Amino acid sequence: MKDTVSDSMNELRGPVRIVGTGLIGTSIGLALTRLGVVVELVDGDPDNALMAERIGAGARLVQLEPQLVVVAVPPDHVGAVIAEQLAQTDAVVTDAASVKGKPLADAKALAEAGDLARYVGSHPMAGSERNGPLAGRADLFEGATWAITPHETSDPAAVELVRRLAEACGARTVELSVPDHDLAVARVSHLPQLMSSLAAGTLVDAPAEHLELSGQGVRDVTRIAASDPGLWTQIVAANSPALSGLLEQIRDELDRLLIALSKEKPNGNYPDDEVTAVLRRGVSGAVRVPGKHGTPHIELVPVLVTIPDRPGQLARLFADAAASGANVEDLRIDHSPGRPVGEVELAVKPASVEQLVEVLTERGWTVHR
Amino acid sequence: MKDTVSDSMNELRGPVRIVGTGLIGTSIGLALTRLGVVVELVDGDPDNALMAERIGAGARLVQLEPQLVVVAVPPDHVGAVIAEQLAQTDAVVTDAASVKGKPLADAKALAEAGDLARYVGSHPMAGSERNGPLAGRADLFEGATWAITPHETSDPAAVELVRRLAEACGARTVELSVPDHDLAVARVSHLPQLMSSLAAGTLVDAPAEHLELSGQGVRDVTRIAASDPGLWTQIVAANSPALSGLLEQIRDELDRLLIALSKEKPNGNYPDDEVTAVLRRGVSGAVRVPGKHGTPHIELVPVLVTIPDRPGQLARLFADAAASGANVEDLRIDHSPGRPVGEVELAVKPASVEQLVEVLTERGWTVHR
Repeated sequence: MKDTVSDSMNELRGPVRIVGTGLIGTSIGLALTRLGVVVELVDGDPDNALMAERIGAGARLVQLEPQLVVVAVPPDHVGAVIAEQLAQTDAVVTDAASVKGKPLADAKALAEAGDLARYVGSHPMAGSERNGPLAGRADLFEGATWAITPHETSDPAAVELVRRLAEACGARTVELSVPDHDLAVARVSHLPQLMSSLAAGTLVDAPAEHLELSGQGVRDVTRIAASDPGLWTQIVAANSPALSGLLEQIRDELDRLLIALSKEKPNGNYPDDEVTAVLRRGVSGAVRVPGKHGTPHIELVPVLVTIPDRPGQLARLFADAAASGANVEDLRIDHSPGRPVGEVELAVKPASVEQLVEVLTERGWTVHR
Repeated sequence: MKDTVSDSMNELRGPVRIVGTGLIGTSIGLALTRLGVVVELVDGDPDNALMAERIGAGARLVQLEPQLVVVAVPPDHVGAVIAEQLAQTDAVVTDAASVKGKPLADAKALAEAGDLARYVGSHPMAGSERNGPLAGRADLFEGATWAITPHETSDPAAVELVRRLAEACGARTVELSVPDHDLAVARVSHLPQLMSSLAAGTLVDAPAEHLELSGQGVRDVTRIAASDPGLWTQIVAANSPALSGLLEQIRDELDRLLIALSKEKPNGNYPDDEVTAVLRRGVSGAVRVPGKHGTPHIELVPVLVTIPDRPGQLARLFADAAASGANVEDLRIDHSPGRPVGEVELAVKPASVEQLVEVLTERGWTVHR
């Protein structure tokens, strides 16, 4: 067993060693370098580390021992690299994997028990559809959520140091147990991903004329289905215990739906109770997602504005919205490319609605509430 | 049997009788009235018809025989009302239901065979999260898709008249057979709705701290789960033959996924082939949805811009984007309310990207491609 974590480690002084210079590792490197923290970049692919160094995420050769190691390698390898870094250094070790149970189990199997006090899992919840060091950005985690998942033997000082790392990157931290974290991301990330993929999968064999009837709904539901299958296979496999329970729940509901849809009522209609139950449950779940549908957090009111598909119209709209004093909290454009008009949904706080609608209408916009 | 449809009916002269003055019926009334067509408003609920009349969608009492009847009542009643209108008038009759097989079957069971030549199904594909006559808008169908679904005995002149109706409302028409239409909407609308509802349903019992980890993915996937369960129960039940096949396909894939996730590989990893297959198929389907992901229709390039959460920032951004000469074809804001910064994804044509990025960067924006 190496040194235990001391209180002086609470402060993030560096050097910070980043193992894995993909999008996440490089972005952490950029954020820390910006703050003057010395960052060491390590990657199995020397080209990746070189690219990360060239864009200013740190240096490939740092002579000093690291205070903190951040393991940002693909999910399948996280546990082994954590154990390796615990053995090779006296540093606090964290990782950035989106599943926490499997890396911890793997690290436990491979590391010395005493060393595990220096390990604290974490999960910076930001990403991009782009991968690799060149997609890295110092502000990737600005305002994002960063989950911190101590295990039973994590040293409190190590937990505190990882919190400092997240805060240095501009993130908001949430502390969760490892099983809680994995069930949470199964619910709010991994299950939605699979449902999106399954829904999109039914479109593969559809004739093109069927797809012409696509609207905003199918676009929204299938958007994340375009994500990287390689990365997601690893995430899904790593979180299979938590995911399986939810998938079984869905499968059972599907079975009930299929039975309901196969039964005709005497009057020629179909028994609707099961269908209605699924749809109602969906409404109850949807309104709980923060940042949408008027959640408890901030209630927002949608205001619909019709816009002609010409350059400069959005500029004019947002200038007029700003003139009303309203802050647009969220927005969505419902617009099939090539369609001559589009519709923008502006979400604003209830107190701003009247003024916004009045000013926009005055200035010639077609506004619907 | 009443008069057969004559060639002179091709032109939409009116009067048009609208049965059912909810969102769709009232919006059609508003669009036609705007063009000077006489519109008669009929609704089982006299308050609804009165409200539709008051906002200018037509008149409750019209002495002239209708040239065209539009049935825009709830899905369960469509077939019966079509048969009733075929019997009561010599007009061409269409409906606006989002499923076409069941209304046709119901109408066939209730109407005289000869009268059915005057019936042509149609489906204006626009809607709103708001219901009722007061949500009606003359421009609801502007640029939208309007499916026209003739059956075996539909008179070609009746088909043409319904096409004129759609065009008068500003819609783009697509002609499909009844079974093709129902399979198409099962794929691009009804299945995504159920998948969204099922995914959202798993969030009902989640602790609030789990929901704090929600990102844009779950927001997109669950957005349409907030739709009206009453209306959707009728739609799902009416289209159960087409939907059942797709739901069975999903259920079978779920079963295979569950088996795959329950099997451990000798090295402690999980067998990934089935998971990867589902995810890959999802990518192939997602890229086929028009208006997203760089489809064959119009290839769009995303440009990411970081924006501070202050009034007027979007106005400044879009003014600067317009100054670059780029037309923003699509946009998405990734922004949890309360988060100090947000990110706007502007989608523009490839030819506009360089200029847009240059102008925005020049003007002090943080831009990522």
